[in-house]
Amino acid sequence: MAKSPEQEHPVKTFGWAARDSSGVLSPFKFSRRATGDKDVTFRVLYCGICHSDLHMIKNEWGSTTYPVVPGHEIVGVVTEVGSKVQNFKVGDKVGVGCMVGSCNSCDSCANDLENYCPKMVLTYGAKYYDGTTTYGGYSDLMVADEHFVVRIPENLPLDAGAPLLCAGITVYSPLRYYGLDKPGMQVGVVGLGGLGHVAVKFAKAMGVKVTVISTSPNKKEEALKHLGADSFLVSKEQDQMQAAQGTLDGIIDTVSANHPLLPLIGLLKTHGKLVMVGAPEKPLELPVFPLLMDRFNIVIRWQPPVVVSYAFPQRDCVLISTMDYGMTGRKIVGGSIIGGMKETQEMIDFAAKHNITADIEVIPMDYVNTATERLVKADVRYRFVIDIGNTLNSSN
Amino acid sequence: MAKSPEQEHPVKTFGWAARDSSGVLSPFKFSRRATGDKDVTFRVLYCGICHSDLHMIKNEWGSTTYPVVPGHEIVGVVTEVGSKVQNFKVGDKVGVGCMVGSCNSCDSCANDLENYCPKMVLTYGAKYYDGTTTYGGYSDLMVADEHFVVRIPENLPLDAGAPLLCAGITVYSPLRYYGLDKPGMQVGVVGLGGLGHVAVKFAKAMGVKVTVISTSPNKKEEALKHLGADSFLVSKEQDQMQAAQGTLDGIIDTVSANHPLLPLIGLLKTHGKLVMVGAPEKPLELPVFPLLMDRFNIVIRWQPPVVVSYAFPQRDCVLISTMDYGMTGRKIVGGSIIGGMKETQEMIDFAAKHNITADIEVIPMDYVNTATERLVKADVRYRFVIDIGNTLNSSN
Repeated sequence: MAKSPEQEHPVKTFGWAARDSSGVLSPFKFSRRATGDKDVTFRVLYCGICHSDLHMIKNEWGSTTYPVVPGHEIVGVVTEVGSKVQNFKVGDKVGVGCMVGSCNSCDSCANDLENYCPKMVLTYGAKYYDGTTTYGGYSDLMVADEHFVVRIPENLPLDAGAPLLCAGITVYSPLRYYGLDKPGMQVGVVGLGGLGHVAVKFAKAMGVKVTVISTSPNKKEEALKHLGADSFLVSKEQDQMQAAQGTLDGIIDTVSANHPLLPLIGLLKTHGKLVMVGAPEKPLELPVFPLLMDRFNIVIRWQPPVVVSYAFPQRDCVLISTMDYGMTGRKIVGGSIIGGMKETQEMIDFAAKHNITADIEVIPMDYVNTATERLVKADVRYRFVIDIGNTLNSSN
Repeated sequence: MAKSPEQEHPVKTFGWAARDSSGVLSPFKFSRRATGDKDVTFRVLYCGICHSDLHMIKNEWGSTTYPVVPGHEIVGVVTEVGSKVQNFKVGDKVGVGCMVGSCNSCDSCANDLENYCPKMVLTYGAKYYDGTTTYGGYSDLMVADEHFVVRIPENLPLDAGAPLLCAGITVYSPLRYYGLDKPGMQVGVVGLGGLGHVAVKFAKAMGVKVTVISTSPNKKEEALKHLGADSFLVSKEQDQMQAAQGTLDGIIDTVSANHPLLPLIGLLKTHGKLVMVGAPEKPLELPVFPLLMDRFNIVIRWQPPVVVSYAFPQRDCVLISTMDYGMTGRKIVGGSIIGGMKETQEMIDFAAKHNITADIEVIPMDYVNTATERLVKADVRYRFVIDIGNTLNSSN
């Protein structure tokens, strides 16, 4: 008979788990393996609440086995290292993101893309190689092979740095891979939530000009003044969207809800790249011809009213013509999901260098069920982080 | 009052035109401009019938003005050159493809991508800079700025070379741009028609391993034996498609009819590229998650029956397991349309060097209406080419 979660490993661990698809979290005693030769064990201090934690605790992807201890934005301080660990020592500040294992022998692993390894093991809710279930960071203790442990630089705050381990790498990796990281480029960010707000920060730090695209006009001030975006488009305002056609080198689309791609493809220059990092459940409509060739009207008017035109986006507007047209083509729609361990470390080092952190609301452990309810309503600016170190204890 | 087509220019020209959306072609007298300083005038010898000619003569894209003289796969022999023409002389074999003008000042033009220039002028059915209508290659004479004239190498047959000016560049350009041209790569070609059959030839000449993907099992022998493809998949056979999941570096999709993208995305390796060069009228369904990460089952069986597996596509099969899984990710769906003039010349030179031509059925001019009817039914292997030089004369 399989051992209970509390008995299957030698190291007593305490966390919060969901027991069923209600998704309600409650205290949970379980266990973790003893520190292996290549393992790093650390005391968890903070853990971010990712939107995918919501899907998992409610079994919305149909793959959850209960009890599930969520959390894959985990940071803390090393308490023990195995005899063969090379890069970490007791007292180091470290983090673990979305995965804790991979095969180490496939092409993806050989290319530092453990995230695309067929045998990649998720940080929680998955089967580890020893057959036991993985448990996430809503817990007091974490153990992982050092290959999946990230060093947190001294100047990066642990609480506001934690969300970078998922949200950060999810947007950093496509900015790099799709070449949207060149100074002076024009990059759009669709959706200003947990992913979107750090996408703005990373892109700005890369020297990119950022346009935030949102359904909510009331996010404009936040985007421009607080996050430092260069411009803002309300995706439902056809005039604005039309005036900005053919102006962007790429777009990071963080929206998981169903939404039209055509207006976004229209914003792209020739060779522009629309990169999906959110994953809507149902297929989206893909108009094919605009990927090949996209012809659009440019309306240029006198000022006032304030007018942006494709031809002269940086100048005061003058009457060139009442109607002209532009053409773009050879565009792509691509995808990306988290990133490999080497790139995750690179991202964290880049964030530390450029003082990039997530905007967070730190909460105590026993607030987590309220936090998940608020997260469903997008009522957080922008990421909840659980203060595990000070508020998780086995007496509550 | 605007002058008639016969009178607006000084040089009498004869061709066949459609007069209305019936698409029926009939003899048509019109005129072309006198050879300008930078113009090349040539006697048309052959002109291919492209599927887009069908759409245009029937006004299926809603943009046709009648009368329309179609044809943008035009080859012939130079009869006159302007005083400033540098690269051509009387007697040269030349061709004109899909476009005859561009602005020469935008970013696209500066990057040899006249095909994406907002002021690009199509070879027929468009307004030229002088305000007159452009007429295509179903005619005895052609005149074009030398920038839009391609040199046809001596060893390239004019008749079977003509279709390369549209069909050839349409598939050559994405193979290059999307990096699907490296020897040993695995590339799929969807649809074995006018575009698809030259895609196979170009990809093979680049050293690529080609898989033809078709709805018609009866094209297998043709694909493998005649065109030299390396393998063949029937897209409706789920077993075959499943066994080939995760095996292709890229796919050139030439199909204009509505068709599912999900099985094609599934065939791609990590970083695989699905490139659309056909343009279905209605949006296709794009499943987003498989672009981010695509997890699939691999079923491995004993032989017999003959089995292909993802893990060991080149070996005789042995029982590894009854069920395993693979994972791929970070894929893209992209588009491409024809190519710039520099690349078109490069493509023609490459074709001549590697003896690549289209498979054609040469027809007389007065067979054209039968040919368009047969083309609707895909009853041609693979391109009709009109023998303009020998069969178009003003007495018929």
